[in-house]
Amino acid sequence: MVPSYDQIAEKVRHVKLRDKIGNPQEAAAAVKDGMIVATSGMARAGYPKSFPTALAERARSGENLKIDLYTGASVGEELDGQLSSLDMIKKRLPYQSVKSIRDSINKRKIQFIDQHLSHTGEQVGYGYLGKIDMAIIEALAVTEEGGIIPTTSVTNSPIYAQEAESIVVEINTAQSAELEGVHDIYIPESPPYRREIPLYRSQDRIGLPYIKVPPGKIKYIIGSDVPDNPYSLAVPDEISLAIARQLCTFLQGEVRAGRLPENLLPVQGGVGTIGNAILEGLAEFKGVEIYSEVLQDNVFKLMEEGKIAAASGCAITLSPEGQKKYLPRIGLFKDHLVLRPLGISNHPELIRRLGVIAINTAVELDIYGQVNSTHVMGSKMLNGIGGSGDFARNGSLSIFVTPATTKNGAISCIVPMVTHVDHTEHDVMVVITDQGIADLRGLSAEERAEAIIENCTAAQYRPLLKEYFSEACNKSGGNQPQLLDKAFQWHLRLQETGSMLL
Amino acid sequence: MVPSYDQIAEKVRHVKLRDKIGNPQEAAAAVKDGMIVATSGMARAGYPKSFPTALAERARSGENLKIDLYTGASVGEELDGQLSSLDMIKKRLPYQSVKSIRDSINKRKIQFIDQHLSHTGEQVGYGYLGKIDMAIIEALAVTEEGGIIPTTSVTNSPIYAQEAESIVVEINTAQSAELEGVHDIYIPESPPYRREIPLYRSQDRIGLPYIKVPPGKIKYIIGSDVPDNPYSLAVPDEISLAIARQLCTFLQGEVRAGRLPENLLPVQGGVGTIGNAILEGLAEFKGVEIYSEVLQDNVFKLMEEGKIAAASGCAITLSPEGQKKYLPRIGLFKDHLVLRPLGISNHPELIRRLGVIAINTAVELDIYGQVNSTHVMGSKMLNGIGGSGDFARNGSLSIFVTPATTKNGAISCIVPMVTHVDHTEHDVMVVITDQGIADLRGLSAEERAEAIIENCTAAQYRPLLKEYFSEACNKSGGNQPQLLDKAFQWHLRLQETGSMLL
Repeated sequence: MVPSYDQIAEKVRHVKLRDKIGNPQEAAAAVKDGMIVATSGMARAGYPKSFPTALAERARSGENLKIDLYTGASVGEELDGQLSSLDMIKKRLPYQSVKSIRDSINKRKIQFIDQHLSHTGEQVGYGYLGKIDMAIIEALAVTEEGGIIPTTSVTNSPIYAQEAESIVVEINTAQSAELEGVHDIYIPESPPYRREIPLYRSQDRIGLPYIKVPPGKIKYIIGSDVPDNPYSLAVPDEISLAIARQLCTFLQGEVRAGRLPENLLPVQGGVGTIGNAILEGLAEFKGVEIYSEVLQDNVFKLMEEGKIAAASGCAITLSPEGQKKYLPRIGLFKDHLVLRPLGISNHPELIRRLGVIAINTAVELDIYGQVNSTHVMGSKMLNGIGGSGDFARNGSLSIFVTPATTKNGAISCIVPMVTHVDHTEHDVMVVITDQGIADLRGLSAEERAEAIIENCTAAQYRPLLKEYFSEACNKSGGNQPQLLDKAFQWHLRLQETGSMLL
Repeated sequence: MVPSYDQIAEKVRHVKLRDKIGNPQEAAAAVKDGMIVATSGMARAGYPKSFPTALAERARSGENLKIDLYTGASVGEELDGQLSSLDMIKKRLPYQSVKSIRDSINKRKIQFIDQHLSHTGEQVGYGYLGKIDMAIIEALAVTEEGGIIPTTSVTNSPIYAQEAESIVVEINTAQSAELEGVHDIYIPESPPYRREIPLYRSQDRIGLPYIKVPPGKIKYIIGSDVPDNPYSLAVPDEISLAIARQLCTFLQGEVRAGRLPENLLPVQGGVGTIGNAILEGLAEFKGVEIYSEVLQDNVFKLMEEGKIAAASGCAITLSPEGQKKYLPRIGLFKDHLVLRPLGISNHPELIRRLGVIAINTAVELDIYGQVNSTHVMGSKMLNGIGGSGDFARNGSLSIFVTPATTKNGAISCIVPMVTHVDHTEHDVMVVITDQGIADLRGLSAEERAEAIIENCTAAQYRPLLKEYFSEACNKSGGNQPQLLDKAFQWHLRLQETGSMLL
């Protein structure tokens, strides 16, 4: 699992820094109980693997050791899985997706901070999240100047490296050397009187291809050869394909109406099966640019086919086949592919300037277009809000997609009132389900309810939603009528009977 | 009420445009049923007065006439009051505060679109809100080039003027000529590939002191001499003063901790009594800059005392005394006072870059820090979200203030679950009531609940909130426990008994 000294040394071009090469146990031994440890990693890509394993050994050998763990976003089993199942995490931010850590968060054994991904780096810079003791960064290599070249994700590593007391570099020899040159590292200044972020096109490069740190801050250089947790790519189901078709219909209409250019505006798309189906649908448009967080298989497929002109992201997350197919020759994409820090990929200034088309997935949404992205039944955390808010708030178009129902129709994803709000109606312009499109732009609350119920709901729930809306209008009145005694009746029924249907 | 031809002509420096001078009835006659009419005005300042009165005459004489009315934000009785009470408004955006229009919105006789104020101009530019037929802009004068000099507010007038089919200029001879030179008009480009907004300090000027339009687009120039609806400034009550004191304590702590410079970062503050009390409190800091929407009396008082170094806003809203005291010599403030379009005063790029300290008022907030700013009992619209979201999302600090209780303690402003969400917990860093401060930065949902309940609630509600939280933890569990069958019990009790107390 751990590469030899020579294998690591080959990647450390700063000759003096080769003195810091050691084994993961030595680096992990520097962690003290209560420390804030910040790591690279997002979408289970580019996170440290041998460091957390060595840290876990300390707990397995009986030591009582807890840390606050800050990452880029979701990381793999080696980090979130091991440490949470050994009860080694006290506080965790800003996003996660591994079952064992989610369980611990929902038992409140881990204090979880669910943040807009663009806010974490900013808040670290302001000193709101405490002093970072150690930054652990998965790297491809260390440059002649001592700069750290990230691997498949950049995330918050530049700001963590800048703010941390000490840095551990984990050279991953399993990562493709072709990734060098893909990254563009830029850290915004601090106020007062800071300047703009000088980025104007998705593919602009505004920084360095490595993370610049004072070499003296690197205390350990360790190795690993474990590939990223691959993303399992389900074959798109009928519902995902239907959603993707509706979305394309909508975007084609915008082009025809002259509200979008033929190659659209830069697109942000969510991850997962729906996200991949949507990207596939974008093949209908030529010369599309991607300005997003996570780049999945289809981005590279469409770039090869010449249908995507440029892709900017923060992480590359591929299926096992995608890893084999694209990573060894990722260098070929370099002219049109940029990996950036989260503070840039998700920066409100840039999303607004570029006019990004934001496409995000809702867990549930209500008749007025309030969106729940995080908490099942209002209480249980799924993964976190991630960057959806950064894009939905600032994009030129904010589209939310969801199946009309799940669990074979037992759950309607469109409900009278969502049990938790992550995106308010102010940030939701278009709702798309497999059933249809509700274009909410320029609509009042009443008109929004009518459009969502009519166009986006499943047939068996439509009359029930109409009944709720009509009763709310009559009994409560107001601009956005709700029945406070019945708003969550569907959810309570689901708990009791296993279905939201009467 | 209407100035003479000569009085108007004196203000129209573009000689040929004097041909367009006419009476309000002629201009109002150009409005056709179903048109989209967009006006200047915000915080009841700088909105047209004689035009809506002439328009109202048409309805009073029996004509059936309805328009969609887009404004900057809240406008006075002459516009929102008259037109809504005559049932002349079909659609209205983005914010309002006059009783008769609020009533019509809550009867859903007017379709109201409640928007982030920074979004309106952007969406008009994208063509999402239809084609504007007429823009009516209150002006101080028309320049030699045919440029329109606004009065006490800028708001969306530049983009409305740019996008409208035709323009009516309403010269208000009651407005202080000293306002000339206070405005800075800059309209962002459209994507793709647009540039940054080149503003780096609160007092930076980046545009023109007037709204540039093709002179041929100005179809009518009419007059009025009605001053703005003054803002009634209540003497700060004990609760407002207590909130202001808590806020100062908090900010002083931030300065001591080195997280804020001694003159803070630019401050955005809400309007009204609490807003004014807070500004008064800022006198403790020297050299503070204001980067806000609405500038009230205390801004000018503190500028005169040398305690505020610069003020940038979108509207000047003064009490009757303030109007007399400051408007005739407003030119003296010009070096440090800038009025901007809403698209600039509220631009996410700029709020984030400047690191604005955002201070906004909540109608109610819940134990996890979700904020309701708009809908009483979840259904009835108050005024709208306004710019609170623009600032809360993007500021370096997002502070929400509210009294712990209202209606002599019958209502707790901190509830188990808010009945409508305008700001999610992701955008709320600090909660301040007259009872105390909950600093939520870096806290999990559980820790947020404990801090808010412990520090910010009134004594009589505290045990009830603790009981709810504890029951939710036990029964529902999860990251952010809620009881879906009891979440709104307090509100239902209030409806039944007139009090949230058991």
